[in-house]
Amino acid sequence: MTESDLPVVHLTSGRWGDPAYRAELPAAAVEALKQLGVRGPAVAPVDPVDRPGLATDLEQLLADVLGADHVRTDLETRWAHTRGYSTPDLLRHRAGDTSDMPDAVVFPGSHDEVVALLEVCDQRGVAVVPYAGGTSVVGGLAPDRRFVAIDLGRLDRLTELDEISRTARLGAGVRGTAAEALLAEHGYTLGHFPQSYEGASIGGYAATRSSGQSSAGYGRFDQMVVGLTVATPRGTIEVGRAPMSAAGPDLRQLFLGSEGALGIITSVLVRIRPRPAERSFEGWKFASFDEGLTVIRRLAQDGPLPTVLRLSDEAETAVNLADPNVLGGAGTGGVLAIIGFDGPVDPGTAAALRDAGGESLGEGPGETWRQGRYRGPYLRDPLLDEGALVETLETAGFWSSLPALKAAVTNALVSSLSEQGTPPLVLCHVSHVYETGASLYFTVVSAQTDDPVAQWRTAKAATNQAIADAGGTITHHHGVGTDHRAAYAAEIGPLALDVLRAVKQTVDPGGILSPGILLP
Amino acid sequence: MTESDLPVVHLTSGRWGDPAYRAELPAAAVEALKQLGVRGPAVAPVDPVDRPGLATDLEQLLADVLGADHVRTDLETRWAHTRGYSTPDLLRHRAGDTSDMPDAVVFPGSHDEVVALLEVCDQRGVAVVPYAGGTSVVGGLAPDRRFVAIDLGRLDRLTELDEISRTARLGAGVRGTAAEALLAEHGYTLGHFPQSYEGASIGGYAATRSSGQSSAGYGRFDQMVVGLTVATPRGTIEVGRAPMSAAGPDLRQLFLGSEGALGIITSVLVRIRPRPAERSFEGWKFASFDEGLTVIRRLAQDGPLPTVLRLSDEAETAVNLADPNVLGGAGTGGVLAIIGFDGPVDPGTAAALRDAGGESLGEGPGETWRQGRYRGPYLRDPLLDEGALVETLETAGFWSSLPALKAAVTNALVSSLSEQGTPPLVLCHVSHVYETGASLYFTVVSAQTDDPVAQWRTAKAATNQAIADAGGTITHHHGVGTDHRAAYAAEIGPLALDVLRAVKQTVDPGGILSPGILLP
Repeated sequence: MTESDLPVVHLTSGRWGDPAYRAELPAAAVEALKQLGVRGPAVAPVDPVDRPGLATDLEQLLADVLGADHVRTDLETRWAHTRGYSTPDLLRHRAGDTSDMPDAVVFPGSHDEVVALLEVCDQRGVAVVPYAGGTSVVGGLAPDRRFVAIDLGRLDRLTELDEISRTARLGAGVRGTAAEALLAEHGYTLGHFPQSYEGASIGGYAATRSSGQSSAGYGRFDQMVVGLTVATPRGTIEVGRAPMSAAGPDLRQLFLGSEGALGIITSVLVRIRPRPAERSFEGWKFASFDEGLTVIRRLAQDGPLPTVLRLSDEAETAVNLADPNVLGGAGTGGVLAIIGFDGPVDPGTAAALRDAGGESLGEGPGETWRQGRYRGPYLRDPLLDEGALVETLETAGFWSSLPALKAAVTNALVSSLSEQGTPPLVLCHVSHVYETGASLYFTVVSAQTDDPVAQWRTAKAATNQAIADAGGTITHHHGVGTDHRAAYAAEIGPLALDVLRAVKQTVDPGGILSPGILLP
Repeated sequence: MTESDLPVVHLTSGRWGDPAYRAELPAAAVEALKQLGVRGPAVAPVDPVDRPGLATDLEQLLADVLGADHVRTDLETRWAHTRGYSTPDLLRHRAGDTSDMPDAVVFPGSHDEVVALLEVCDQRGVAVVPYAGGTSVVGGLAPDRRFVAIDLGRLDRLTELDEISRTARLGAGVRGTAAEALLAEHGYTLGHFPQSYEGASIGGYAATRSSGQSSAGYGRFDQMVVGLTVATPRGTIEVGRAPMSAAGPDLRQLFLGSEGALGIITSVLVRIRPRPAERSFEGWKFASFDEGLTVIRRLAQDGPLPTVLRLSDEAETAVNLADPNVLGGAGTGGVLAIIGFDGPVDPGTAAALRDAGGESLGEGPGETWRQGRYRGPYLRDPLLDEGALVETLETAGFWSSLPALKAAVTNALVSSLSEQGTPPLVLCHVSHVYETGASLYFTVVSAQTDDPVAQWRTAKAATNQAIADAGGTITHHHGVGTDHRAAYAAEIGPLALDVLRAVKQTVDPGGILSPGILLP
């Protein structure tokens, strides 16, 4: 099954991903969890109890703009639009916690309807949060105040295709899978395959600076965007008249990563590429993570760079996250790298890997990874079912800082969770490389305490501080949301924060756009 | 002579470039000018007459911060820091026009001194304009009010070199030539070679989003920057903790292109690369500009891309700007492309050019171009001496829009100048390519009217409107300055303009930073 054949999955169940697919934990994994002290779930799932939604007069006002069919206040719809998919989110969902539930969900059908909606909400002081794929893992859908969720799912079309310039305009509500399918009809690919690909959407990719598994070849999503249309309470902003310009600051880069706080991105003009006839993946083995890091740095700096480049550390290799079906299986020593190409494996890349001491493991591990590439997150639900705490986080830094940054994050997680009586397993990989540095992606698994939300809050705070102290950025591709906003404010400093607040005050004087998300 | 061997040139003479080098117009060029109706200069050069400079108490305040040696109010220093190098600038300079002359020139020696200086100037309401290379061609050094020029020339050091991450921190006052020399000592290159390379500086590159002749291989300057330190009246902003981040908007991209209006960039962390042992250049001939455009688009989209890629149109090829020594020489038909490589010519690129109908002209035209690559601007002074009006301008757009954009700009220039009785010669080339589009760079030559500054103002206004109507951006790499600010405001629209004004109000509440530059 290729990327464009995957179904469009609506993540509305409080469990990750396609409801038709349920991951099973292998027996070895269950055994490994026992060694971590995992002893059954701390929170038994309960159903949500409704609470009062939107006032009737407001509902009527919104219906006047969108039509009554496109304004929903029933519990089922609102619950399905409640928060995202971080582990605390999943835990709160299991607890039936409706504190983050929207008062209504509205479904605009056009950019102009979004603008009209914002005007009405601004007049009445109603907070709004854009909702597209709903896959935030940083609290990006849970504002400080009661709110209306604006589901962008109806903005689901390819509206422009310029085959000379190789650009396409996609609505904010186009899912990753749908974008590939729409472009494939014309022979093109976007090449953006984040792990949330089955559910996340174009608008979310742009608003959170998503980065996909093929980022070595295609770049990050923010590097694919050449134009944006943004709706604000004060009207529309259109940016991107040329690939690049010297006409002042690059305003595209002000709205990319703005997470709904500076406007609602309704469509994006993206760079597209011809769809490759085949994609190839291989596994390579290196003696150690440090050795592997040197090799992937060399590829990132001197090439030839593959399309996919991913390096697991010793712990992740032993657990073999590349193949969730053997989670907990015995490692074979060394570390695993996955390289992927559009077309056949580049002999230059293979030679560079070999010269650096790498050993080819052939297509087997590559194919295994490819088939499981979107399956990792599905393990979170059975892990929670078993009573494990499992979460991921990521950072990035310059190459010279990465070893210390990795050690600092690992130490913070181990110390904080051990102090809480739940020593964790911490796994790490690099999957996004640049000439000057790379990302680090961590997976942590431990037993739950009696209050796993508080347990993780403590561990996460320690980790955030460790990242700041080691000079990394608080997030490489998950975004800021509410979970990272304090760390983000510290990272950019008070004056830069004032700058962003001034921008927000200008486009959103009533403060209705995603209050508390991104900006404290 | 390689790039790093070129002398650091201080452009302080009111004529472009190295005072030791004077370009001569070939006889054929002089003859060609006669055919355009050029009949001797309209304005005879006159010396400037001093006007009152900074009040004594202010001078003392600045001296208290920097030391008296670093505060200059003499006519010679101030005149040498007066405006940039656009044709109107050169004409005003020849007219002895001191209206844009700073009241003083100060020379801070550190970031902290710049911050202290801004604090004092803010308290006293003294406008400031940063001055580094002084090579603006868009009025970027001529604010709306009387002002103090802050010459960043003492911030001229390489202060960090991270060979693992391949980054270097360079002071804002490091000239292009000096940057290459400093990096060459360690075996690295920045790879940024704009035509202003002999005079322009790191701070100016960043503040104006400069793009160099090797942009196909090295990217634009704004793509080389991974971190910035900015001084504002409200203190310091540091951005860039990682190559890329999902932590909110990319604030680097807010200060890149801010042209001194949102702060003074005092140092830049840039990506560096190993210095190539050799660089190769070749000329190629195509039947027409349209054919050539298709070929360079193919290289930009599918590769393999050379380091330098430049395509002249029929008119520019006939005049042969690639070799200023034969300006006005007869063309041989077709259009000329120059390709350049770090190392030998890539056979894949050559094959792609050949397959597309290109004919290799060998290294001769490439070497001629390489030797003359920084010499083009030197022709402006002898052309002005002859009484010609000569100016350049640039835009960019998506590939599908380029033919219409080129025709619109050419028509605007021809119509406007012909209506003024001075039909022009309009030349064009593409020298910066992207997957989705490219730049267009125009050179225009005509006879002068009695008031060449007004003559060009009229032609430029018509051109700006044509660019806007054709959907291009008002500038690809020269910047906004004062010349483009109205067109820029129209390009981004009133709400985005409000956003930038809000940013300015936040970092510069007193409005002392380059008033009237970038933002109306």
